Amino acid sequence: MRDAYHEELDSLTNKLVLMTTLVRSAISRATTALLDSDLQIAESVISRDAEVNATFEEIETSIFELMARQQPVAVDLRMVITALRMGTDLERMGDLAVHVAKVARLRHPDTAIPPEVRPTILQMGQIAETLVTKAGSCIASQDVESALELESDDDAMDKLHRRLFRNILSKEWPHGVEPAIDITLIGRYYERYADHAVRVAGDVVYLVTGARPS
Amino acid sequence: MRDAYHEELDSLTNKLVLMTTLVRSAISRATTALLDSDLQIAESVISRDAEVNATFEEIETSIFELMARQQPVAVDLRMVITALRMGTDLERMGDLAVHVAKVARLRHPDTAIPPEVRPTILQMGQIAETLVTKAGSCIASQDVESALELESDDDAMDKLHRRLFRNILSKEWPHGVEPAIDITLIGRYYERYADHAVRVAGDVVYLVTGARPS
Repeated sequence: MRDAYHEELDSLTNKLVLMTTLVRSAISRATTALLDSDLQIAESVISRDAEVNATFEEIETSIFELMARQQPVAVDLRMVITALRMGTDLERMGDLAVHVAKVARLRHPDTAIPPEVRPTILQMGQIAETLVTKAGSCIASQDVESALELESDDDAMDKLHRRLFRNILSKEWPHGVEPAIDITLIGRYYERYADHAVRVAGDVVYLVTGARPS
Repeated sequence: MRDAYHEELDSLTNKLVLMTTLVRSAISRATTALLDSDLQIAESVISRDAEVNATFEEIETSIFELMARQQPVAVDLRMVITALRMGTDLERMGDLAVHVAKVARLRHPDTAIPPEVRPTILQMGQIAETLVTKAGSCIASQDVESALELESDDDAMDKLHRRLFRNILSKEWPHGVEPAIDITLIGRYYERYADHAVRVAGDVVYLVTGARPS
């Protein structure tokens, strides 16, 4: 049986996994809001971010209590420190999903996404979801091998990001500057979302091995 | 006289202040690289980011050693936790300066910044420098009043950021899509840089009062 202290550490892990599910849902709905110009879904991403923030605050509070009361050392200390860092990244991922949703809201009832770039945005959304889902799985399993795999999914995101720029910059781009700006920002949001997911996985590696992936 | 433990905490503060001076210099030089199309200065921002990262690694290492050995409580615990967070933000600010420098390098010997937006970019650079300099001063002084002032400087940054979009989107914008994309990204980098500086100041408020500014 685990003692109260280790139950608290487990609860921390569970809350981080919960955050990954919340921000996965957020980016998934944000992509839908963009592609369908769906105002209601955009609004839901924006309003539900409060839940992400509240979960992070619970994590912060638990960590401070744990550290003050239990003074964890060695791997337990690494656990609480990395939990704080993972929570920070996940909270930011929620914000980035909100940014995407806000572009959808701003352009509603029009769409921010012209047909030429819809496939790229769809795929960026899918990779973002895959990355955060894998990150959640890594947090739960503490599996270093799978944590290291996230890097290659992120390479796919970077490729899509570059393709997005090629689209906007092609001579055939007929939509002018405003959609190009929207898409530049949206592309950046997805790319940053993916970076944060990779950092979360990197923290799992650090937690287990004591060394960060290069 | 201070004991070795408190000297270590002081050294942590000094290293954070050092990081603010490094990333201030980085954003200052990045702005110059942009406005002067100066490749050498751009390269210096990119190569010197290693020093920012190394300083952050020293901070991380000290914190882990401190926590393992001294098991700080109460305000000292808040100190090491917020130091970790401030270091993370400052390290990111260095990255953002590098992103700005890379746009300058990419467009060299041309400029990424058409004349219409030069004053706005210059001012964004100046506010970024002001914010990080004030943040460094707050870390050293632990002055809550001045830490809270950073919010209003950040409002000025947000105004400039909006002005930048008005520039790019005006009917008179003659430069087409590519410079608009560069400027969209550059604007985003300065704005994020400022956000991180405000977060650092917010951490000073938290450190001193135990509560985060709303």
